[in-house]
Amino acid sequence: MCRWLAYSGSPVLLEDLLYKPEHSLIVQSMHSTMGAEATNGDGFGVGWYGDRETPGLFRSIEPAWNDRNLRDLAAHVSSPRVFAHIRAAIGSPVQQTNCHPFRQGRWLWMHNGFIDGFHAMKRDLALAVDPERYADIEGTTDSEMLFFLALTFGLEDDPPQAVSRAVGLVEETARRHGIGFPIQGTLATTDGETTWAFRYSSEGRSRSLFHSTDVSMLKHQYPENAALHELSDDARMVVSEPLGELRGAWREVPEASCVAIRGGEEELTPFKPLLPAGIR
Amino acid sequence: MCRWLAYSGSPVLLEDLLYKPEHSLIVQSMHSTMGAEATNGDGFGVGWYGDRETPGLFRSIEPAWNDRNLRDLAAHVSSPRVFAHIRAAIGSPVQQTNCHPFRQGRWLWMHNGFIDGFHAMKRDLALAVDPERYADIEGTTDSEMLFFLALTFGLEDDPPQAVSRAVGLVEETARRHGIGFPIQGTLATTDGETTWAFRYSSEGRSRSLFHSTDVSMLKHQYPENAALHELSDDARMVVSEPLGELRGAWREVPEASCVAIRGGEEELTPFKPLLPAGIR
Amino acid sequence: MCRWLAYSGSPVLLEDLLYKPEHSLIVQSMHSTMGAEATNGDGFGVGWYGDRETPGLFRSIEPAWNDRNLRDLAAHVSSPRVFAHIRAAIGSPVQQTNCHPFRQGRWLWMHNGFIDGFHAMKRDLALAVDPERYADIEGTTDSEMLFFLALTFGLEDDPPQAVSRAVGLVEETARRHGIGFPIQGTLATTDGETTWAFRYSSEGRSRSLFHSTDVSMLKHQYPENAALHELSDDARMVVSEPLGELRGAWREVPEASCVAIRGGEEELTPFKPLLPAGIR
Amino acid sequence: MCRWLAYSGSPVLLEDLLYKPEHSLIVQSMHSTMGAEATNGDGFGVGWYGDRETPGLFRSIEPAWNDRNLRDLAAHVSSPRVFAHIRAAIGSPVQQTNCHPFRQGRWLWMHNGFIDGFHAMKRDLALAVDPERYADIEGTTDSEMLFFLALTFGLEDDPPQAVSRAVGLVEETARRHGIGFPIQGTLATTDGETTWAFRYSSEGRSRSLFHSTDVSMLKHQYPENAALHELSDDARMVVSEPLGELRGAWREVPEASCVAIRGGEEELTPFKPLLPAGIR
Repeated sequence: MCRWLAYSGSPVLLEDLLYKPEHSLIVQSMHSTMGAEATNGDGFGVGWYGDRETPGLFRSIEPAWNDRNLRDLAAHVSSPRVFAHIRAAIGSPVQQTNCHPFRQGRWLWMHNGFIDGFHAMKRDLALAVDPERYADIEGTTDSEMLFFLALTFGLEDDPPQAVSRAVGLVEETARRHGIGFPIQGTLATTDGETTWAFRYSSEGRSRSLFHSTDVSMLKHQYPENAALHELSDDARMVVSEPLGELRGAWREVPEASCVAIRGGEEELTPFKPLLPAGIR
Repeated sequence: MCRWLAYSGSPVLLEDLLYKPEHSLIVQSMHSTMGAEATNGDGFGVGWYGDRETPGLFRSIEPAWNDRNLRDLAAHVSSPRVFAHIRAAIGSPVQQTNCHPFRQGRWLWMHNGFIDGFHAMKRDLALAVDPERYADIEGTTDSEMLFFLALTFGLEDDPPQAVSRAVGLVEETARRHGIGFPIQGTLATTDGETTWAFRYSSEGRSRSLFHSTDVSMLKHQYPENAALHELSDDARMVVSEPLGELRGAWREVPEASCVAIRGGEEELTPFKPLLPAGIR
Repeated sequence: MCRWLAYSGSPVLLEDLLYKPEHSLIVQSMHSTMGAEATNGDGFGVGWYGDRETPGLFRSIEPAWNDRNLRDLAAHVSSPRVFAHIRAAIGSPVQQTNCHPFRQGRWLWMHNGFIDGFHAMKRDLALAVDPERYADIEGTTDSEMLFFLALTFGLEDDPPQAVSRAVGLVEETARRHGIGFPIQGTLATTDGETTWAFRYSSEGRSRSLFHSTDVSMLKHQYPENAALHELSDDARMVVSEPLGELRGAWREVPEASCVAIRGGEEELTPFKPLLPAGIR
Repeated sequence: MCRWLAYSGSPVLLEDLLYKPEHSLIVQSMHSTMGAEATNGDGFGVGWYGDRETPGLFRSIEPAWNDRNLRDLAAHVSSPRVFAHIRAAIGSPVQQTNCHPFRQGRWLWMHNGFIDGFHAMKRDLALAVDPERYADIEGTTDSEMLFFLALTFGLEDDPPQAVSRAVGLVEETARRHGIGFPIQGTLATTDGETTWAFRYSSEGRSRSLFHSTDVSMLKHQYPENAALHELSDDARMVVSEPLGELRGAWREVPEASCVAIRGGEEELTPFKPLLPAGIR
C-alpha cells in the first residue's frame, strides 16, 4: 500500500525527518518491512507548513529514493509541521494528482490502505461529495475521494466526526453493493495546528500505526542522542512504521482509534464509523 | 489549444506522418501557425491500429518535439489508421491521463478546443454519463468528458447522433448555468474503420479543420512527389492545420459540419446539437 | 544491480516475453529473487529489430512495472530479436541516457553488474575510447563506457575479442589504481544476427546467467504448453534470472565464459580478459 | 537558446522573481521575445542560497510553465541570491543533468548560447579539464563543459580570469578544428557572495544581457510600485531579457564585457579570451 509520517514540533529540516533515521521513509520506499508491499516506488509527496496560509506541496511520480530534487528541498526547507508519503499504487495511475498528501486550503490529507470495491462504488461516493467541491477532485484515488467526503461532512469543523461519517458512508455504500469489508487503513489529516490520525478497518485488522511518546523522557533516557536533543519537548510523530529501533520511542495506536496531537498533547479516542442519517 | 491529425489508408510509417511533412505535427508542437497557441508542449499522444482488436496508445507528458521514444516508435511502427495529438493545456493538469487520444475498447477520441465554464458544469455532465462507465473516467479534461457523454449517447451505434446529443447536453447545461457560448472546437473519433470529424462551436466561430482531397488527382498533378505516390488511392487525412503548402491538397471542413471518412469515400453532413429529449 | 533478457527466434510479441512468463522481467522489476537488489525500479529499456537497419529503442526512467506505454508497445510490436533490461542504479543518475540497452548503429549492448572504482578510473577509460566516438557517449554509466571500449577494440569485427580487450583494459587500469576486483557482471550484445553473452568477474564470482536449451526437446516434454509450441525451433533466450520454474528449460552459463547464439546454435567458449598489448 | 536571471539583495520569495513580473521568466518559457527561440520548454532550473554552505537546486525536464512543484517551491522559499534558467535544447538530451544552473560546491553556473562545433571539439576540451574533476561531469552540454574548464582554470580564485582562459581555450581549440566563430552567449556564475555575468561571442554579436540599475533611484521615480519598495537598496538583477517594461530599470551590458555584482556595487570590465599559455 503506502507508508507515511506526520511530524509536529519545533521546526525541523525535512532531511532530518526523511533521510536521517536509520529506517527512514526513504529507506522504506525501497525496503518497507511492515507494509503490505516491500516496495513503495509509485511516487511520493511532502507537504509542509511555512509562512504562508497554505502549506507547500512537493509531489512526484518518481520513486522517492531516486529524487534529487527531494533531496535538495529536504536539505533546505525547515518546518514545524510535515506530512510525507510514499506510494505503492494499486490500480490507479501513477500521476502527480494521485500522490499524497492531498491539499485543500490549509488542510492536508494522506492515507495508507484502500477501499475494496472502489471501482463499483465510485459514482455513488462521488455523488455524495459536496457539489461545490466536486470539480476540485483532481485524481482518481479512493484516498482523495475519502478526503472530499470528509470535507463534505465537516472536516474543517470536527475532523473525527467528519471522518467517521465519511467512513460510515463508504461502509453503507459497500453494504448496498454487497462488499464485505470495504475499508482498511490509516489516515492522517491536519489543519496546520492539530494532527489527527486514524486507524480503522471494517474487518478489524488494520495496517500498523504508531506515534512517538514523550520526548522529554526520551532525552533523559538517551542523553547521548543528538537528534533527540534538538527536538522541542512537544515534538511528536505519527508513522505507519517506526523509524529506527529506539526502544520505547514508539507506541502502537490501537485498532479503531483516533489520536489527535496538538502541541505536546496526545488524545486517544475510539473511532467508529457513523452511518448516514436515517440508516442506523 | 491543441493540434491533431487523423490518417486512414494504406499502412504508413508513423514517422512519415508525424515528422516528414514540412509543417508536420511535431513542428506544430513548437510552432503552430493556426492554433490558439503557438506552443503545444503539454504532452502528446498517438493511437494506432494494428493486429489487435484494441488500438495501441502512446501518450506522454513531455513536449512531442523532445521525445526520443516517440521518434523510435514512429520509425518502427506502421499502421493503416493513426490518430495523433499535441496538447496545449488550459487549466487541467499535464498528466498522461489527460493526453489525447482517449481510448475505450476499439474507439479513439481526440479534441481541440474547450468547454467554457467546464468547472461549474462538471458535476452535472458527469452525472449524465452512463453509471456503468463513470468509474472509467481517468483524467480531468472536458475532452474526455465529451467522449464519455458520446459513449453514453450511443457513439458505438450512431456516432454523429451521439456527438450531437453530447454537444446538445453541454449546451443545455450551459444555458442553465448562464454560460453563453459553452462549446468550441474540433473532434475526431474512430472505431478503426471509419473516422468521423466534427467542427462546431456554439458561437459559430470554430477552430480550423481540413481534410485531404482525392489522392489520385494529386498524384497526377504532382508526378515527382514520392510521398504522395506511396499512399494508396483511398488514403485520407483530417487535420486541424494543413501539413505543408501543397496547393489544392486540403479542403476546409465548413463550420457546423461532420465529415465521415470510410475508405476513399468522404461524406459531409451538417452538424447540429441535439437538445436532451423533452427540452426543445 | 539489474536484470535483463535477450531473445532470438521466430517473431514474438514483446508482451509474451516481458509480461506473460510467471517470473517475467516485469515481475522481477519489483521482486527479483536472484539479483543483488530485489527492486529494479530505476528505469528500463527495450530494444527490438524490425524492418529497419537500426533497432528500435524504448527507454524510460519510470519503474517498468508502472509504465503504460511499455504495456501498449509490448502488446503491438513483434520482433525476432529483443533485448530488454530493468535497472537498479548504483550512483549514476536515473535518466534515459543511462538506461540500457545502449545502441550504436545496428548494435545493442546491456549489462548487469558494475566496475568497482569507476569514478577514479573514468577519465583513463574515456581516454582509451576511439576519439571519433568519444563525443557520442551520452550517459554516465560504467556500462556505456564498456560498450564504447568494446566498439573501440573491434566489437563490430570480433565481439568476443573486443570484449576481452575492453575488460582487460579495465583490469589493467584498476591495477594501476590499486583496485582489487574491478569488474563484475554479465553482458549481452548483438548485431541483429548473433547474440553474444558474457559472464565474468575479476574475483571469479559473477552474477548469474542462464540460457534456454533446445526448444524442440522442450516441446516434446511439455506437449500441453502453448507458449512453447508457438516458438520456432531455433528460439533461444539468455537471461540474468530464469523466467518461470520449467525444469530443464534453463542451463547456467559457467563462470568466465561467453555464449554465442546464432539461429538455433549455441557456442560456449571460455572468456578471458586480454591485457593491453605490451603489458602481459 | 535559453533565458536566465540572477538575483541578489534582500531575501525575496522566489515567486516574486519568477512569476510576478509582467514579462517573467515563466512567461518567457513560452513566449520569449528576445531569445533565439520563442519557446524555452526543454527543462528549467533554480538555484538558491539558504542557511547551508551549498545552494539548493531544483531542476526538472518539464517546461517551467507547467511545473506545479516549482510553483509551490517558489511560494515557500525565500533567498537573498537566486539563479534561474529556462532551457531551449540544441541537440543534447533533455535530462536533469543537462539543466542549468550547474553546481559544484558553493558555485553555481548558467549559460545562454552555445559552442559551435562542440561535438568535434568535445574530447579535446574534456582532456583539458582537471583530471580530479573529470568524473564529476554529469551531463553532456557545452555549458557544463565550460563550467568545468573555468573551475580548472581557477574559477574559485579569480572568476573573470578563469572564464577568460576557458573561453580562450575553446577559441584556440576551434581554430585547430577550423571552426570560425566557436563561442556565443552569456554566462553567469556565483559563489554565493558575488555574481559575475559575461557577454561575449567570437563574432562580436552576442545574445542580449541586461542588469538592473540603482534601486533607490527607481523607488524615488516610481513611488507607487510596491514590489520595488520591498527590495533592499542593494538588490540587483542580471537577466538575458528584461522583465517588464519599466523604463530606465535595465541597462544593457555591452558586448565583450563582464559585470560583477557585490552587494549594491556593480563593476563593469572588458572581457577578452585568454589564449592558452605559449600560444599568443
